[in-house]
Amino acid sequence: MNDTNQSTLAVIVTSGGLDSCVVATLAAREYSVAMLHVRYGQRTEERETTAFSNISNAVGAVEKRIINMNYLGQIGCSSLTDPNMSVPENPDSGTPSTYVPFRNANLFAAAVSWAETLKARFVYTGINQIDSSGYPDCTEQFLNTFNQLISCGTRPDTQIQLVAPLLSMSKTQIVKLGLDINAPLHLSWSCYQNEDKACGICDSCRLRLQGFLSNNAVDPIPYQTNPFASRSW
Amino acid sequence: MNDTNQSTLAVIVTSGGLDSCVVATLAAREYSVAMLHVRYGQRTEERETTAFSNISNAVGAVEKRIINMNYLGQIGCSSLTDPNMSVPENPDSGTPSTYVPFRNANLFAAAVSWAETLKARFVYTGINQIDSSGYPDCTEQFLNTFNQLISCGTRPDTQIQLVAPLLSMSKTQIVKLGLDINAPLHLSWSCYQNEDKACGICDSCRLRLQGFLSNNAVDPIPYQTNPFASRSW
Repeated sequence: MNDTNQSTLAVIVTSGGLDSCVVATLAAREYSVAMLHVRYGQRTEERETTAFSNISNAVGAVEKRIINMNYLGQIGCSSLTDPNMSVPENPDSGTPSTYVPFRNANLFAAAVSWAETLKARFVYTGINQIDSSGYPDCTEQFLNTFNQLISCGTRPDTQIQLVAPLLSMSKTQIVKLGLDINAPLHLSWSCYQNEDKACGICDSCRLRLQGFLSNNAVDPIPYQTNPFASRSW
Repeated sequence: MNDTNQSTLAVIVTSGGLDSCVVATLAAREYSVAMLHVRYGQRTEERETTAFSNISNAVGAVEKRIINMNYLGQIGCSSLTDPNMSVPENPDSGTPSTYVPFRNANLFAAAVSWAETLKARFVYTGINQIDSSGYPDCTEQFLNTFNQLISCGTRPDTQIQLVAPLLSMSKTQIVKLGLDINAPLHLSWSCYQNEDKACGICDSCRLRLQGFLSNNAVDPIPYQTNPFASRSW
């Protein structure tokens, strides 16, 4: 904890999943955190919002904001928001069907708007290009280009940097970091499919479970099915 | 009219103002147009939405979508959305108080999400860096950087170009172009302040009236006050 920087504010884009839980905890060790959650018609919207609220309280957020981008769900074209498309149980080749067109540009734009109003210095995101390969809006090039956009598209005296500390980490490394810094992982929710017990079989559940397994740790959230149970538990 | 390109789709970001009316008309001469309007708590929201609908019908839009970004208004920090701040009657020096933090990044991100779903080839915007000087998200640099963001942040087979045909035109040139191509300028609304009769004194009204005056033309919309009336009418 660096008390000298607690007056510096960071906006955290927080889905409520494991990655954003780790990022929020990491940022809150250095800065005051303003937590932002976006609802956009994703299947597990209510459960994510609950996770967001619980994580925000756990990390001592000084501000919380939930915004509605239901137009992203209405625009469609993603299995993450369209109940008529099935969520993949194995990684797709190419761009995953869970890709929501240009979603992160929408999320980061809103975060920067809020950050500029709050005079925050940073926007933190949990995007990751290793285990989320195939999402074009989760890459280092996207991050760097977005930072150029912030630099030229905000007031001349505004200084906001978009940072993605997990960008090049594997899920195993992310879980290890979360455990090391006591991130409230039990409050996070990653399942794309269910809201009561995580399904254990969607892409997101599998990655998360593998991350815990590789750390010889037990994921504290409830699962309906655990494909690795015979090996880990 | 180039009939061979009517199968090519362009999304038009349309406020309902004079500039977007001209841009929509221009694009509709070459392509099929999908019209997008964003409500974000601006003072004249209802009047702008009416203008959007009327312009969309006039240009023969094949798709129309109105989306709600009321979080931009809630975030605040702009006289365009905050009823407790006054709308300036003379141009500010520096960034105008009507600047909504990073607004155009939010608008263009939503437009690109829709364009990617529709498989549109273009997103058109009426941004202008001459008469809107001081808005950091209305510049050529912002436009070019956003195009880089689209290129890296969408599916590999997606090809969307953000185009701003009015970027470097004066208001006089924009009105002239609108008159030349028979844009339905009588359906557009530019006033930042009023919804029944344009106030005639806010920045936006003054610029618009000057544009018509310089073309020796009469602005067809009703005004409460016309500061140039003694010279033009």
